[in-house]
Amino acid sequence: MEKLLYTGKAKQMWQTDDPTILRVVYLDQATALNGKKKDRFTGKGRAANAISSLVFQYLINHGIETHFLKKLSPTEDLVKKCKMYPLEFVTRNVVAGHFASRFGLDEGQKLTEPVEETFYKSDNLDDPFINESAIVALKIASHDELVRMWGICERVNNLLTPLFKRASLQLVDFKLEFGQLADGKIVLADEFSPDNCRLWELGTARHMDKDVYRRQLADLTQTYDEVYDRLSSAIKEANEND
Amino acid sequence: MEKLLYTGKAKQMWQTDDPTILRVVYLDQATALNGKKKDRFTGKGRAANAISSLVFQYLINHGIETHFLKKLSPTEDLVKKCKMYPLEFVTRNVVAGHFASRFGLDEGQKLTEPVEETFYKSDNLDDPFINESAIVALKIASHDELVRMWGICERVNNLLTPLFKRASLQLVDFKLEFGQLADGKIVLADEFSPDNCRLWELGTARHMDKDVYRRQLADLTQTYDEVYDRLSSAIKEANEND
Repeated sequence: MEKLLYTGKAKQMWQTDDPTILRVVYLDQATALNGKKKDRFTGKGRAANAISSLVFQYLINHGIETHFLKKLSPTEDLVKKCKMYPLEFVTRNVVAGHFASRFGLDEGQKLTEPVEETFYKSDNLDDPFINESAIVALKIASHDELVRMWGICERVNNLLTPLFKRASLQLVDFKLEFGQLADGKIVLADEFSPDNCRLWELGTARHMDKDVYRRQLADLTQTYDEVYDRLSSAIKEANEND
Repeated sequence: MEKLLYTGKAKQMWQTDDPTILRVVYLDQATALNGKKKDRFTGKGRAANAISSLVFQYLINHGIETHFLKKLSPTEDLVKKCKMYPLEFVTRNVVAGHFASRFGLDEGQKLTEPVEETFYKSDNLDDPFINESAIVALKIASHDELVRMWGICERVNNLLTPLFKRASLQLVDFKLEFGQLADGKIVLADEFSPDNCRLWELGTARHMDKDVYRRQLADLTQTYDEVYDRLSSAIKEANEND
């Protein structure tokens, strides 16, 4: 029988008959402020999964190794089981959100080079900001593993920034997570959806990500569906030009 | 006429007749919680300056370039004027204080290698934790400058850890600041006293630093005077053995 392994803020992870494969279920749920704010949105799981599986497939097609195997249903994927690093890797192209308030900067300032920040995943500790030196000393990951993971973040940024631009969206920042397969290989895991990135419409700077929920700006599912439509056209266009 | 340039939490900086030289005055004052807690202690300025000028002279004698010129009176030094980097460089040999609470660790755990953390000096922002990537992108310091400054931190740790051990004190952690001289040279600046480091008595783990004030454990000036006496003997002993 299938066993529920983990319920996160927006997803559940289930065992399957194959011990190397898990089933992910995207929930109709959004949270903010590290879970302190939480609401139900019909269709949100379907919309987030649509974007995430599209992005993961695009990254795989461009040589990024990920945990993603296939989309099973509108709200479900099959993924390779991996041992997750308890780290969030945030890449910032433009000043926004917490980064702006922490350093007293204006939102919207373009960074001359991407800022890379790691956070230690712990709900009890409120996901504290951590640097490489502490990650290594506390044996959360080695220097070499961090170099590999930041290398993947950079490649993802270089692939997705122009793709989102084609969809008239600016990739402001995004959060990635990584896991290790049984053979030790590090792969991109978790998801890539507007739950974990900031997307601003080019020209208008309209928010088209979870900030519409955090800041109560627009309907969440509708916004995600629009991102999916734009992204899907952009990928078709990119494929035709390849 | 001499002009007051800056009043900090524990020191004042004054102009002198020589535009390349400043006079530092150590105040009889201690603060905690980023200035929210503040008290007067008779003799504290003298005690902190005694330790700091002793440590700076020791570092200079061992090849570290600093802003320190000479002790002028029990509470005053002359220092080279420099343009300060708005950064605090914290080196941690043992888990303590904010680092313990931030990552849910027990105080006293020895780190397998020193943890290096930088904080952006800003009272308004509460001195936020910052990493190398943000320091470089926000043009606070370049990668090369950071490498040079962390190199000095490492040499200071390697010089002072055995010196404090000779004084039966464990150098748990310490904060350094750096400045740039007119010719561009980076030098160690600010001070080195139990205001900016944690010292635990070997064997008993008795606190012999500003934590006696933060945690109301013992008399501040008396504790600093004891640190000075031990350190001064340790340096004499070290010099005899050199």
